[in-house]
Amino acid sequence: MKLDSTNGDTKPSGSFTEGGGAADDDDVLVPPLNFAVVDNGIFRSGFPEPANFGFLKSLHLRSVICLCPEPYPEPNSEFLKSHGIRLFQFGIDGCKEPFVNIPEDTIREALKVVLDVRNHPVLIHCKRGKHRTGCLVGCLRRLQRWCLSSVFDEYQRFAAAKARVSDQRFIELFDISCLKHYPLSFSCSRK
Amino acid sequence: MKLDSTNGDTKPSGSFTEGGGAADDDDVLVPPLNFAVVDNGIFRSGFPEPANFGFLKSLHLRSVICLCPEPYPEPNSEFLKSHGIRLFQFGIDGCKEPFVNIPEDTIREALKVVLDVRNHPVLIHCKRGKHRTGCLVGCLRRLQRWCLSSVFDEYQRFAAAKARVSDQRFIELFDISCLKHYPLSFSCSRK
Repeated sequence: MKLDSTNGDTKPSGSFTEGGGAADDDDVLVPPLNFAVVDNGIFRSGFPEPANFGFLKSLHLRSVICLCPEPYPEPNSEFLKSHGIRLFQFGIDGCKEPFVNIPEDTIREALKVVLDVRNHPVLIHCKRGKHRTGCLVGCLRRLQRWCLSSVFDEYQRFAAAKARVSDQRFIELFDISCLKHYPLSFSCSRK
Repeated sequence: MKLDSTNGDTKPSGSFTEGGGAADDDDVLVPPLNFAVVDNGIFRSGFPEPANFGFLKSLHLRSVICLCPEPYPEPNSEFLKSHGIRLFQFGIDGCKEPFVNIPEDTIREALKVVLDVRNHPVLIHCKRGKHRTGCLVGCLRRLQRWCLSSVFDEYQRFAAAKARVSDQRFIELFDISCLKHYPLSFSCSRK
């Protein structure tokens, strides 16, 4: 990754990632499928492919939360290892309706990892970044006190035609009471 | 907005917003239509209604970029004034296809405001948070070196059935060369 020399002169206070806005046009970054910023230091996506590693590198991740039960692919494990990124794996089966059974305890444990700023920047991913990731992010939004219609709107933006009522019911019924004492960092809280 | 007393004991390093995860269930926040986090200190949405002011307050915005040409509504102006939030208005007509004509110069000026961290946290909004906002965010992603397919995927996630080829062509052809010397803050850059 290149750092353009013109960056040095105009750098304001605060730190900036390498190569920000100053690379050749052919030096593009490929975010993983369904990538998005959830909040300050929290990202979501589908399963990262080797083609996405350059992009992931630019995020300077400290950890990855994988919600799939399968063994983590060797190239991904190597990428994490070589960049000192910690993997938290919470295996949730990627079932199809009507056999969906999102385990509440597992989501709660994953949420605790998400809420711990010592793990940030963190990437949450499953296979396609729709259902399992959507449930985890939906529960996070409930903790952030978003109204349900906005939580579901966001869920549906990613799940699109694959949106599941059962996932949305899970998010609605998820018991956030035991997580309420966790402090929440918010996007703008570091200004 | 309330701050739960249990927060004090478990607060780790870093600053946190008031009421984070510790409010009554009926104390919900209502994000504006199509709200999302674009990046660290950069948000996007449709036109904020008074019902969204509580949520906007929680973002501790420093500025708002409105891409609509109409006079800013009185309640919104008052909200901004009472919270010391600066309004940048870049009037772009919300035309329907095939009469879409996104002015490149206006988007470029708006991008300069987005790129200036002194304006962060900043909310970018138009009417529905789809086309004008989608074009501005799309050009920002090009500056961030995202590959076009990912830029379009994000644009389409918000525009959905209303996605316009003309907007996507605008994003693709937008000349980013004169903005390349601007440093880009990225989500995780403050860790």
